[in-house]
Amino acid sequence: MDYANPSHERVTIIEVGTRDGFQSEKTFIPTAIKAEIVDALIAAGIRDLEATSFVSPRAVPQLADAHEMLALVKRRAQAHIAALVPNARGAERALGAGVDEVVCFVSASETHNKANLNNTVDGSLAAVREVADIARGKAELRGAVACAFGCPFEGDVPVAAAMRVIDTYAALGFTQLTLGDTTGMATPPTVTRLVRAIERAHPGLPVTLHFHNTRGIGLANVMVGLDLGIRRYEASIAGLGGCPFAPGATGNICTEDLVYLLEESGFDTGVDLEALAAVARRVEAVIGRPLAGQVMKAGPRLRKYSLDGAACAVG
Amino acid sequence: MDYANPSHERVTIIEVGTRDGFQSEKTFIPTAIKAEIVDALIAAGIRDLEATSFVSPRAVPQLADAHEMLALVKRRAQAHIAALVPNARGAERALGAGVDEVVCFVSASETHNKANLNNTVDGSLAAVREVADIARGKAELRGAVACAFGCPFEGDVPVAAAMRVIDTYAALGFTQLTLGDTTGMATPPTVTRLVRAIERAHPGLPVTLHFHNTRGIGLANVMVGLDLGIRRYEASIAGLGGCPFAPGATGNICTEDLVYLLEESGFDTGVDLEALAAVARRVEAVIGRPLAGQVMKAGPRLRKYSLDGAACAVG
Repeated sequence: MDYANPSHERVTIIEVGTRDGFQSEKTFIPTAIKAEIVDALIAAGIRDLEATSFVSPRAVPQLADAHEMLALVKRRAQAHIAALVPNARGAERALGAGVDEVVCFVSASETHNKANLNNTVDGSLAAVREVADIARGKAELRGAVACAFGCPFEGDVPVAAAMRVIDTYAALGFTQLTLGDTTGMATPPTVTRLVRAIERAHPGLPVTLHFHNTRGIGLANVMVGLDLGIRRYEASIAGLGGCPFAPGATGNICTEDLVYLLEESGFDTGVDLEALAAVARRVEAVIGRPLAGQVMKAGPRLRKYSLDGAACAVG
Repeated sequence: MDYANPSHERVTIIEVGTRDGFQSEKTFIPTAIKAEIVDALIAAGIRDLEATSFVSPRAVPQLADAHEMLALVKRRAQAHIAALVPNARGAERALGAGVDEVVCFVSASETHNKANLNNTVDGSLAAVREVADIARGKAELRGAVACAFGCPFEGDVPVAAAMRVIDTYAALGFTQLTLGDTTGMATPPTVTRLVRAIERAHPGLPVTLHFHNTRGIGLANVMVGLDLGIRRYEASIAGLGGCPFAPGATGNICTEDLVYLLEESGFDTGVDLEALAAVARRVEAVIGRPLAGQVMKAGPRLRKYSLDGAACAVG
């Protein structure tokens, strides 16, 4: 990339905070507030959202209100609304709620898939086929690969293990693919190798990168993705989320920090950064503890200060 | 950069936490603890440190113990120790303490230089000449440019304004140059333009990049620097530091997260990441509040978990 000259290429931001972020919050967030946040995100210019998930209400009580929440979203027609579904039952519920996109997920790691979905990878791929048969023609199909860049139980995940899941998605006619960095193990080499393998095997299949900032390098991985030509990224408003393995670790990459990086780097996101930062501050207030997002605290790059304020320390 | 193939090129990490980080801490950190941290950093493999500053003790009481602190460092001979000096008096004190390198600093922005040093840029450059005359032949000379990528009072800083300071450093025989992103305003385009201008004007002058993570994109800027061929970066252990303009904003980029990124990206830093993360946890304990570093919380990439632990949430 030559960052000296802005390309003005479009980069698609897919907001996943109300799904990937909220699902790890223990205190139930009122349905109306969830819908209000989705509306505020859309008003700020976000056009793609993985807004909720139709998993078992027992497994994820926080998202038990998926149907009701989507029904409350006023600006729904302005956005492409996706929902995560684990099985045929979830797909029926999601379609019943009128989602635009159904997101399936299978881990590239047997051990993680067993821990997360209580199923083998083959078993989960069979469930994906059922979902595809139900949703095909009614909603867009997105396949997500969890632990695409590493597994907290198995360590490194071979490219071939991820490709086995991806090949199935492609064969079933999925038109979108997300590579999930579930526990923040993606690195510049692992991202490069997997993206190149997909380009070779499935040229033309759009790839979305979903990084977590668990080890602080989420946006560095985005830079690698940009260099590889990837123009779709998932992120969470305010940096919502976390990882149960690492207390104090951050969650998904932060949407407003990502938008700041992209816009400053000469890409167009269509998002109003000030409005998005305001949503992030609202989310922080709803959650009730400091969240990881930085731009919502520091403000836009050219925010100016008067000399009356404290001067920044030397250096 | 082709991250699929590790280059094993050496990248130099310059630790600035005990200077840039500690100077913004209000509670005095005992001198022996400062020296203990410097020793632990050296033991972890850090070979370059901007360890302290010989500024007025009234201006920065936290670093009033610069001479005594350096005298307590046991592993001093194993490292290249630099200290920040604002004027001739500071240079004499730094040389008296036996530093290996003297770091001068001038802002690229008139308004910031006035606020920070109570001097015009011309006045500060005259002071730099005095320091150079005192230290030349006795210590290495490093010139730092504050607000190289933007100013909190003036906004964008023209490349020409930074080049004016850099040209003076080069003319005075400085052998090291640091571009300081004092309030976290650096972006991929601003980094690219300034680095290229320096390469054209002063080929062969080694450039060090000093980013703050104020807006979350510090390590993304490092990726741009790596792509431009820059192999020297300053960082603060545990992500120490902050910015008085932005409560809650982070400080310098975090040393252990930077080392993690570089080593995982195929560069060699010579640093033991586990040992460095242990130093970061010690620093967090000394400071007494959570610091921004992520790797010290999440652990190395291939830390494995048993299935007895909570499984990470889906996605």
